[in-house]
Amino acid sequence: MVSTDDSSCRASARARLIEVARGDALADTLVKNARLVNVRSGEVHEADIAIFGGRVAGFGAYNAREIIDVAGRYVCPGLIDAHVHIESSMVTVPEFARAVVPRGTTAVVTDPHEIANVLGVPGIQYMLDSSEGLPLHVFAMASSCVPATHMETSGAALEASDLERLFDHPRVIGLAEVMNFPGVFLGVPEVLAKIDAAGDRPVDGHAPGLSGMPLNAYAAAGIGSDHECTQLEEAREKLRRGMHIFIREGTTARNLRALLPLVTFANSVHCSFCTDDRHPEDLLSEGHIDALIRLAVSEGLDPMTAIQMSTINTATYFGLRGLGEVSPGYRADLVVVEDLRDFRPRTVFVEGRVVAEAGEYLGPRPAVPAPPGSGVRVKWEAVDLTVAAQGGRRARVIHAIPGQIVTGQSIEEMRVEDGRLVADPARDLLKIVVIERHRATGNVGIGFVRGFGLERGAIGSSVAHDNHNIVVLGASDEDILHAARVVADSGGGQAVVADGQVLASVPLPIAGLMSDLPLEEVRDRVEALAQAARGLGGTLPDPLMTMSFLALAVIPELKITDMGLVDVNAFALVPLQVKQR
Amino acid sequence: MVSTDDSSCRASARARLIEVARGDALADTLVKNARLVNVRSGEVHEADIAIFGGRVAGFGAYNAREIIDVAGRYVCPGLIDAHVHIESSMVTVPEFARAVVPRGTTAVVTDPHEIANVLGVPGIQYMLDSSEGLPLHVFAMASSCVPATHMETSGAALEASDLERLFDHPRVIGLAEVMNFPGVFLGVPEVLAKIDAAGDRPVDGHAPGLSGMPLNAYAAAGIGSDHECTQLEEAREKLRRGMHIFIREGTTARNLRALLPLVTFANSVHCSFCTDDRHPEDLLSEGHIDALIRLAVSEGLDPMTAIQMSTINTATYFGLRGLGEVSPGYRADLVVVEDLRDFRPRTVFVEGRVVAEAGEYLGPRPAVPAPPGSGVRVKWEAVDLTVAAQGGRRARVIHAIPGQIVTGQSIEEMRVEDGRLVADPARDLLKIVVIERHRATGNVGIGFVRGFGLERGAIGSSVAHDNHNIVVLGASDEDILHAARVVADSGGGQAVVADGQVLASVPLPIAGLMSDLPLEEVRDRVEALAQAARGLGGTLPDPLMTMSFLALAVIPELKITDMGLVDVNAFALVPLQVKQR
Repeated sequence: MVSTDDSSCRASARARLIEVARGDALADTLVKNARLVNVRSGEVHEADIAIFGGRVAGFGAYNAREIIDVAGRYVCPGLIDAHVHIESSMVTVPEFARAVVPRGTTAVVTDPHEIANVLGVPGIQYMLDSSEGLPLHVFAMASSCVPATHMETSGAALEASDLERLFDHPRVIGLAEVMNFPGVFLGVPEVLAKIDAAGDRPVDGHAPGLSGMPLNAYAAAGIGSDHECTQLEEAREKLRRGMHIFIREGTTARNLRALLPLVTFANSVHCSFCTDDRHPEDLLSEGHIDALIRLAVSEGLDPMTAIQMSTINTATYFGLRGLGEVSPGYRADLVVVEDLRDFRPRTVFVEGRVVAEAGEYLGPRPAVPAPPGSGVRVKWEAVDLTVAAQGGRRARVIHAIPGQIVTGQSIEEMRVEDGRLVADPARDLLKIVVIERHRATGNVGIGFVRGFGLERGAIGSSVAHDNHNIVVLGASDEDILHAARVVADSGGGQAVVADGQVLASVPLPIAGLMSDLPLEEVRDRVEALAQAARGLGGTLPDPLMTMSFLALAVIPELKITDMGLVDVNAFALVPLQVKQR
Repeated sequence: MVSTDDSSCRASARARLIEVARGDALADTLVKNARLVNVRSGEVHEADIAIFGGRVAGFGAYNAREIIDVAGRYVCPGLIDAHVHIESSMVTVPEFARAVVPRGTTAVVTDPHEIANVLGVPGIQYMLDSSEGLPLHVFAMASSCVPATHMETSGAALEASDLERLFDHPRVIGLAEVMNFPGVFLGVPEVLAKIDAAGDRPVDGHAPGLSGMPLNAYAAAGIGSDHECTQLEEAREKLRRGMHIFIREGTTARNLRALLPLVTFANSVHCSFCTDDRHPEDLLSEGHIDALIRLAVSEGLDPMTAIQMSTINTATYFGLRGLGEVSPGYRADLVVVEDLRDFRPRTVFVEGRVVAEAGEYLGPRPAVPAPPGSGVRVKWEAVDLTVAAQGGRRARVIHAIPGQIVTGQSIEEMRVEDGRLVADPARDLLKIVVIERHRATGNVGIGFVRGFGLERGAIGSSVAHDNHNIVVLGASDEDILHAARVVADSGGGQAVVADGQVLASVPLPIAGLMSDLPLEEVRDRVEALAQAARGLGGTLPDPLMTMSFLALAVIPELKITDMGLVDVNAFALVPLQVKQR
């Protein structure tokens, strides 16, 4: 990112832009013979677009140092992702940019709450620093819910005072998804203090299924958006109550088809597109916001509306000055496409420079700063995975559900060996443990899980939403401990092991969340992990991803943290073993 | 205005609103059985609207202290005028509110540049103070062009540093119409400094007829809107270049019919309605923004779009937090109407209180603070209206054009009496003078004018755009001087005199621009002035208004200020008398 802080646009630069615009000085570039997708006037019209100093000077017969003839192709504003956790791409911000910029994305609004749970404010600062010098405007929302609950150990806790300091950064533009929606509608002072800290900045919401009076209260508190709608009527209710609707199409959560009927000409301005979480494979094969435009148009949405939802609507909601449209004085972020219905970005300009062509990234590749701390501190001497049978043989079991992040639960009579409850792969009952990795507390949460199908071995990950402790599940304590060690020894990562062998692994040394490898290599290694798990009898398409959500104690029903099992409906820790009745 | 500063919404008030919204405490009011015109979701839907502490708590079956059943009538958000000079109503702000609030207007964005030309920053402060305690949210834009030119004497000059101080006021929200558009596109540092002073606040434009590269430069400088479009293609070009279009329907400038074809479902969000200048008679008989909605709908615009252009679009453009829609957390400013096509406000709520019913204003009538200074200081001993014939008998003559503010011009051989050039009513050649009234400089500009038709007497006014010196025209120097004295003696005003008699007058003691009388009385007296002028042979429907624009030296062709005649096309002072050729 060269600079998106308009206040830093010096008077002299502006005076020179005006000079160029009125025709008294040479433009840098003239993008000739464009069919401009004018998202403000809602029309496509012919234009020759003059650019100077990274900004649009004007439309007309300008003289310029360089002429780029786009030969009647469409020129759109650069695309904006309204809500994305870059960490979910499992790569650094420059690698993420290398993936999405050729797809036409020139700005993202990111919530860095994954890294914030591990490293706190320095983690957020790291993400901002990592985005310097990229041809991608990276804006951050200050993470509002770190940690997600009080029933887990995270690497950091962000208070309202921490958020206030974050807002001093020119690219921190609002408060990120307020996931603690009961805290909002119940008026918990610490939660409202975070909203207050945001001042007049936008405050994003996250309120899956919230409706009726609690939703009124949530909106009345000043929550301005929601990206968690899965049902049409849910989205309609939120829109009617004053919320901007981000329609999400991520790797797991795919809501576009269900929500598209919401969008009309009379309300589309209050709708935007976002990805939330996109894994490496999807970024490489499907794409990014361009994929949402293609899908929406194929589902019948007017292409102009789809492009508005990917550009000006989002810029307006967030108050992104100088972004979201191709107009004099705005950043010259342009996407050239052949066809508005089959939206395939061909040439991408950021601040007037060509940064991608025919899918190939041509922008700078700045070095990534060192992450602030390793992010993995485990008190191994305290890690004890045994469950004594004298506590009872009946145990709560988490049920994983393919393609969902909610779980089921049951109570099962467990197998006993040497006076201990153990996994029973024959009945698809594996042991699952969460080993605290931030503060070396020695905390270990232990449970059992059904639905993964592993016959032997173990899978482990330091990606475990949202607290990102080390989660491992497997058929034996030895393999579980081995997988945990492999993950920890690489400073975080994911691994599949069996019988003392590492079958596949991906190190994620950046906060235990992100690799320092290229996106394609990460994609391949993640694929190898899934394959290895299937080789052990695993039945889920992406068992590492499914496992990573088993620690997310804000999604029903039964979850596990380093403190133990969480009954999410009761919002309370519950014991693993159940007394005989 | 009770309070529109969201930062002053204390945490406790918000917490109580949340409590009400979630159904745990009693609402103040429930507006039952509404058909809510939801300008965000673009639908009309049924709703019971709960209100607490002046804000909307939510929609639903709430318990409330008071139930108001609107029996299936439509409920819209309060209307917003995007650009208005309240001074043009010729009454105080409370009287203006009394006229427009029953019409459904609950917020206005005003440019106080008339009073700023007379009294400077204290004049603007007076307008803000006068709007305290009213059921009308009055926001001000800091006046950018005071004085309008260097060829006139105004009561004050506002520099960028003055504007910066104004922005400290919570209701000063941006920079008012930058009328000096050549100064912008030529990059004059003093003009750009004023735009810089606005920071990220909205900057309104005023660029009649500007097109092509100069328009690109004007937009590139950061000008965000325009309300001066008179031609459809002009508006289209400005919209395409990133400007928000205020469609104006004032007393003189009536552009709605011409511009309405601009508005489509794909761009209407970037269009708003404004009145700019509405005189007492129009406010009383036609109305305010409600009149624009009726006219637009009768011309074929979708009522939802018309209401959006009068509410949420304007609130979004200006960043008016908590205004422009009926949603939880927003101000409970509601307009109840029977019919969306014949839009006649019946009940008007501001911050949850009924402030107008069936056209009758029911709100508070706070006392008006004293204006800061009389606004009239004339050095009478220096006032000499004679024009010596030895300077030449041929003189430049201004031609008034009915219903327009542009003028024509010619050179005429004048009648001579006692060695002086004098008016010649038989040839419709009257003398016109501008007497400086702010700084007692003794400046008098003298000219001749054709087009008013007075056979005798004189008409005078201290409303003379934009510098508001005393302008008088008439058939004899005696009557001219008498009219000027009558105007000055009442601390400013308008008068029609003949043969030493005052035939009609309206005192405007507030800055020489506004009366302290009720709107209806001002309307009657203004009407009496026009009648009296017609009785003297006057041929124009509103000669006082036409005269008031003859001093506006930014509108072609020949104008007059206290410094003399201005050839506006040459943007230079020119002598009255022309040498024989």
